[in-house]
Amino acid sequence: MADHTIQESIYILKKSSTRLSVSTDKQRNDLLLAIGQGLVDDWAEIERANALDLSAAEANGEKEALVKRLVFDIEKRDSVIAGLKQVAALQDPIGRVLERRLLDTSLLLERVSFPIGVIGMIFESRPDALVQIVSLCLKSGNGIILKGGKEAAHTNAALVASIYKSAASSPLGSEWLLLLTSHSDVDVMLKMDGLIDLLIPRGSNAFVKYVMDNTSIPVLGHAAGICHMYVDKEADLAMASECAFDSKTQYPAACNAIETILVHKDIAPVFLLMLASRMADKQVILHGDSQTRSYIDCLPCTQGDYDTEYLALELNIRVVDTYQQALDHIAEHGSHHTDAIITKNKELANLFMREVDSADVMVNCSTRFADGFRFGLGAEVGISTAKIHARGPVGISGLMSSKWLLQGDGQVVASYTGSNAKPFLHKELAIGEESK
Amino acid sequence: MADHTIQESIYILKKSSTRLSVSTDKQRNDLLLAIGQGLVDDWAEIERANALDLSAAEANGEKEALVKRLVFDIEKRDSVIAGLKQVAALQDPIGRVLERRLLDTSLLLERVSFPIGVIGMIFESRPDALVQIVSLCLKSGNGIILKGGKEAAHTNAALVASIYKSAASSPLGSEWLLLLTSHSDVDVMLKMDGLIDLLIPRGSNAFVKYVMDNTSIPVLGHAAGICHMYVDKEADLAMASECAFDSKTQYPAACNAIETILVHKDIAPVFLLMLASRMADKQVILHGDSQTRSYIDCLPCTQGDYDTEYLALELNIRVVDTYQQALDHIAEHGSHHTDAIITKNKELANLFMREVDSADVMVNCSTRFADGFRFGLGAEVGISTAKIHARGPVGISGLMSSKWLLQGDGQVVASYTGSNAKPFLHKELAIGEESK
Repeated sequence: MADHTIQESIYILKKSSTRLSVSTDKQRNDLLLAIGQGLVDDWAEIERANALDLSAAEANGEKEALVKRLVFDIEKRDSVIAGLKQVAALQDPIGRVLERRLLDTSLLLERVSFPIGVIGMIFESRPDALVQIVSLCLKSGNGIILKGGKEAAHTNAALVASIYKSAASSPLGSEWLLLLTSHSDVDVMLKMDGLIDLLIPRGSNAFVKYVMDNTSIPVLGHAAGICHMYVDKEADLAMASECAFDSKTQYPAACNAIETILVHKDIAPVFLLMLASRMADKQVILHGDSQTRSYIDCLPCTQGDYDTEYLALELNIRVVDTYQQALDHIAEHGSHHTDAIITKNKELANLFMREVDSADVMVNCSTRFADGFRFGLGAEVGISTAKIHARGPVGISGLMSSKWLLQGDGQVVASYTGSNAKPFLHKELAIGEESK
Repeated sequence: MADHTIQESIYILKKSSTRLSVSTDKQRNDLLLAIGQGLVDDWAEIERANALDLSAAEANGEKEALVKRLVFDIEKRDSVIAGLKQVAALQDPIGRVLERRLLDTSLLLERVSFPIGVIGMIFESRPDALVQIVSLCLKSGNGIILKGGKEAAHTNAALVASIYKSAASSPLGSEWLLLLTSHSDVDVMLKMDGLIDLLIPRGSNAFVKYVMDNTSIPVLGHAAGICHMYVDKEADLAMASECAFDSKTQYPAACNAIETILVHKDIAPVFLLMLASRMADKQVILHGDSQTRSYIDCLPCTQGDYDTEYLALELNIRVVDTYQQALDHIAEHGSHHTDAIITKNKELANLFMREVDSADVMVNCSTRFADGFRFGLGAEVGISTAKIHARGPVGISGLMSSKWLLQGDGQVVASYTGSNAKPFLHKELAIGEESK
């Protein structure tokens, strides 16, 4: 696509995505499997490209975690290929009948699933994520514009080159996929409303917020993950300590890790000692309010701490007098992402699930379960804290829209209005039911 | 709420909407019925207020259509009260289980419906619309900020005063409802992201576009309704003529009325004469391309006409050589709202339904059916041309979000990761099924 400007390429991609949306499931599945085979055939080039990215990262003194994410070895390749096969085996998400209603004799209304159109994905430096995202968009019939992290530039380019080769012999072609590489391309994308239908930014909170603030294209994602655990006076304290430990330490850089734990005052004297001892196993830095510090030794917690997403082994602790105080704290400082309660009181747990306005509300388990794979959605394109479209972990269904189809035999609205109006039938039909 | 600034009132409303979201269905239904009774009790004040608006409109020389929409007489009141009863009788939309999956023994995941939060509705000068919108938001547990047209200011204020009186004796109170009256309040609303979760503007295209361009709050609606009808060479010509007549003339100011009719060249000589004769019944002004004007007498169609939403008895006619040319025209000039095909060719109809990327796609019937009531959704809050959340006519389900609830007995993610990882069960449960 070197001969086109980015804008021209995106116009072409938009047209191509229309063709993709009416392609058959078999065409899309064949291409998914061909892409997997292509990764094997082109392995030498991909391996060489990845080595370039890795040595550049090491030369730049990048953190070990980043370098680890950059690695695209045989093991990751094979797991990506397994993922492509899994996605190909999924039921066709296009054209599913979601509602079916007979408005009148021979006037059949159906709402059917349909691809959103063109997805703009801006993602971190994980080459395996590139293949995963491409596979979900291809399966769901959406065109995809990718902007990957510069640290993975060589690997990403080699992967897309391989996908293009695989697509060359497919009737779907390769124009539904575009890889952007320059950082300034992000701003071009943000202005392409009307062509890009949905943006999915993944990366730092500041970056996601920048995207949300600078585009009128709908954005699926979350800017912050300030998650809480409330340990009630009727909690099983050993369970609470384990769940808190997992929620904080199992993967502290994740958005669903907790930043603050709220502890009911009645159990604070006993529980805080248990908690401090468990958190010491991973040297978690604790910030406590004044009550907390009357029981355990830790840093003072300042007001700003409650609004900080540490993404590290650091945790705020606050003692609360009542359930309501915990609720108010979550409403004030939370990011409506994932919040948990630990309690044996079923009624209180039910209240918490109703009253906490977060995408994921957990009872007696770790917040770290908030994830598309763990939730059983297959792969995940992101976690959304928006209240519309998709909320929480978003799987392939988040890449789908729908349209209404109405089939008649000449009906006009004039017959159904005025003093002599025909009544509507409005008969709900089962999805599989015949219309007559 | 006279003592508060608008911002303060909206903060209070946000808190109140949280209480509303956890209220019982009975509390909401009782209030819906009380509001209906209140309209009867306060009829004298409402009637007086409406008379003020009507005489002001007449004094200002407003168009008859606007004055008609302003009228709030006993008949409209009673139909609004009937609507309140209908909404009260609807199934509770809050807390419905939408997905249910056992992740592992005693680890139950559910996705349940939940109100979006606070809806900002900016609507035209129809007092009956105010009551309808309030009823849908109340039933669905959403706080609502209303900004009505200034022409209906007295009537709207009297209606809201009556609703406040009815709400005074309800445990839900009245703080979940706020009526804004000044035009500058619109700009205040557009900046309240984080407090207002969804904006629903109704009104002129220019106004809706202004809203969409000037807020980062999600907007549900449509800026333009440029709808098409394609009359295929295999169409039943009498049917095509009637459907076109209804689509254009049944209510020309509606967004789902057609602006352009595309006619296959093979049937153009016969069909255009039929069409011109039928459209003459209502003095529809026709704009034709050069081929059309070789068959019938009409104004020339200029390129800009294809992008104009007439909202009046005016119609473009273009003769196309092929189905593909019609499709390309719709893709280029349409607003993805509602488009129709008239054909006896089933295969072509199926292709059209797949290939036209519009919220509503019609086969052999009028485009005017694209409406929440006619589609059987009950009342409608608007018609959306967005590809995410809700598309096409939007009923009460468009006011709902969802959240994920995960209930365990102490599970942590560490047990499900690493070399000794427990596998997930991921067992789909029927909605009503017990978890064990």
